[in-house]
Amino acid sequence: MVQEYEIIVIGGGPAGLSAGIFVARQKTSCLLISKDLGGQMNLIPKLENYPGTLMSSGPLLAKTLESQYLSFNGEIVYDTVQMIEETESGMKVKTSRSEYISKSIVLAPGKVPNNLGVENESTFSNKGVHYCTKCDAPFYQGRVTATVGVGGYLLESGILLSRMASKVYLIYKGGALGGDKEMIASIEKKENVQLVPQSSIKAISGNNTLQSIVVLDNSGKETTLQVDGLFIEMGSKINLDFVKHLVKINTKGEIEISEGNATAHPAIFAAGDATNIPYKQIVAACAGGATAGLSAFNYIERLKGKPGIRADWKKTIGDTIFHY
Amino acid sequence: MVQEYEIIVIGGGPAGLSAGIFVARQKTSCLLISKDLGGQMNLIPKLENYPGTLMSSGPLLAKTLESQYLSFNGEIVYDTVQMIEETESGMKVKTSRSEYISKSIVLAPGKVPNNLGVENESTFSNKGVHYCTKCDAPFYQGRVTATVGVGGYLLESGILLSRMASKVYLIYKGGALGGDKEMIASIEKKENVQLVPQSSIKAISGNNTLQSIVVLDNSGKETTLQVDGLFIEMGSKINLDFVKHLVKINTKGEIEISEGNATAHPAIFAAGDATNIPYKQIVAACAGGATAGLSAFNYIERLKGKPGIRADWKKTIGDTIFHY
Repeated sequence: MVQEYEIIVIGGGPAGLSAGIFVARQKTSCLLISKDLGGQMNLIPKLENYPGTLMSSGPLLAKTLESQYLSFNGEIVYDTVQMIEETESGMKVKTSRSEYISKSIVLAPGKVPNNLGVENESTFSNKGVHYCTKCDAPFYQGRVTATVGVGGYLLESGILLSRMASKVYLIYKGGALGGDKEMIASIEKKENVQLVPQSSIKAISGNNTLQSIVVLDNSGKETTLQVDGLFIEMGSKINLDFVKHLVKINTKGEIEISEGNATAHPAIFAAGDATNIPYKQIVAACAGGATAGLSAFNYIERLKGKPGIRADWKKTIGDTIFHY
Repeated sequence: MVQEYEIIVIGGGPAGLSAGIFVARQKTSCLLISKDLGGQMNLIPKLENYPGTLMSSGPLLAKTLESQYLSFNGEIVYDTVQMIEETESGMKVKTSRSEYISKSIVLAPGKVPNNLGVENESTFSNKGVHYCTKCDAPFYQGRVTATVGVGGYLLESGILLSRMASKVYLIYKGGALGGDKEMIASIEKKENVQLVPQSSIKAISGNNTLQSIVVLDNSGKETTLQVDGLFIEMGSKINLDFVKHLVKINTKGEIEISEGNATAHPAIFAAGDATNIPYKQIVAACAGGATAGLSAFNYIERLKGKPGIRADWKKTIGDTIFHY
């Protein structure tokens, strides 16, 4: 059975949650679909530049946004969106586990980490394979790890792991490390870091959790390394395969938005890091989400022949106090 | 002596304070000039739609933003900007009490209440004359008040005052009250509200505080009313007289901004309710401020031949943890 909502928000980071807050607050049925809560905010252990929060962190802000959204009766489902299709009954959102219909959609998918692209990679995800060294390095205190990646991401990962793990294999394709010279010098001094240049990872294996990786070097030689954890630090990308037939995407792979966070499709609005905004800040994602949410609300109001709203100011008519 | 700053922010509402946070965090000398702290946020007793704050209010959010800004060593001066001039040494900001020079300016003046336009009005401001009934009605418990204004603003003011004051004169130019029918019916039932139609206020007087107002009706008759408080609810406006020769202003009186919150002047950026953004939300003002602040920072970096930044991610090089 296909569940119907007035508005569906795709993405559970700051943009998606803010869109949800502004939609659900208008007593409009709203479903937020996301793989996780918080998105890239989970990478922020100390958050000092979000206006209005002191002594906060990315995960804490994510929980606060979730509380606000749920307080307005918004719904959340943790699932992966596979395709959006335009049908006669509305916009159909197909996920890994279900299907949903809505009148309007807010896209806030953010960025997701790049995969390594080897077999069984998803099987071992969070079972030895990790995409965020900052988040997960502390689980590898005194254990054997490898990190594979590019540029500054790899250097950061290596430095962080070297402070936790007993051993760090630092695997990279080039002959020399790239990036900040101070960080490279710091890495090269670490006794527990073994550089593995001109190499890539060919296979990963284990039982329930990761146990070993096969490294292939430029000469064609394969080496099996016993590791407890593998960190993949290849940057992040915007994945819009599920919606690229409906919106306009620029050469950077970002959704092009215009005033009111509109996309090229009249029923679809977008916000956050997946859009062509100049500074990818959390507060910019929140504001974009709020704007996209209000625009989606106004879109469905106009479908009903109503005028929509210009702002979200609450006003209790009659003899009660007016809250703005 | 003219004090110099790298960046001056004009306005102490959410846009200006957020701009200040993002500028000062870059260890850039920043002065924020404002008439008050919080601006229109002070009108919000209960704030439920700012993403990331639960159980908050406009004044509380303003204090939090101020704390963040001051924590990065930003400076604040309470003063009124009278004119911005381009000089050989930079942008000169003339205020009521001083003069300042900066390389770049962020405009975030917001909206200010419309004045009545009578003599001595500013003398009695906050000494009997008020521009925000929601904020200041509680000071008039059991006292005699008048409110003058337009449409919904006047109706709200009358209802709020009727719950506090012993007497409310409701003064308006038209023959009939305009606005929401339920609110008009509510007003007309109040025994302590006296409607004063087809009238305007000609003069106000008092000793240290307001004591009486002179009401002029359409027939030319003048009546003096003894009142303790006068509330002026004539809506709000954007005042850009001090900068209109430097930026482009649209037909609604708003500053036109483009990507990165740029204005028509390369050294001036703008954010908040005084700009042409579709939804005048606090979070939109904060994001606009953050963006304008980063753009101003990048502008002065480029003046120095540096590349500027695309995001505000903090990264401690070397062997310490990386905060994003």
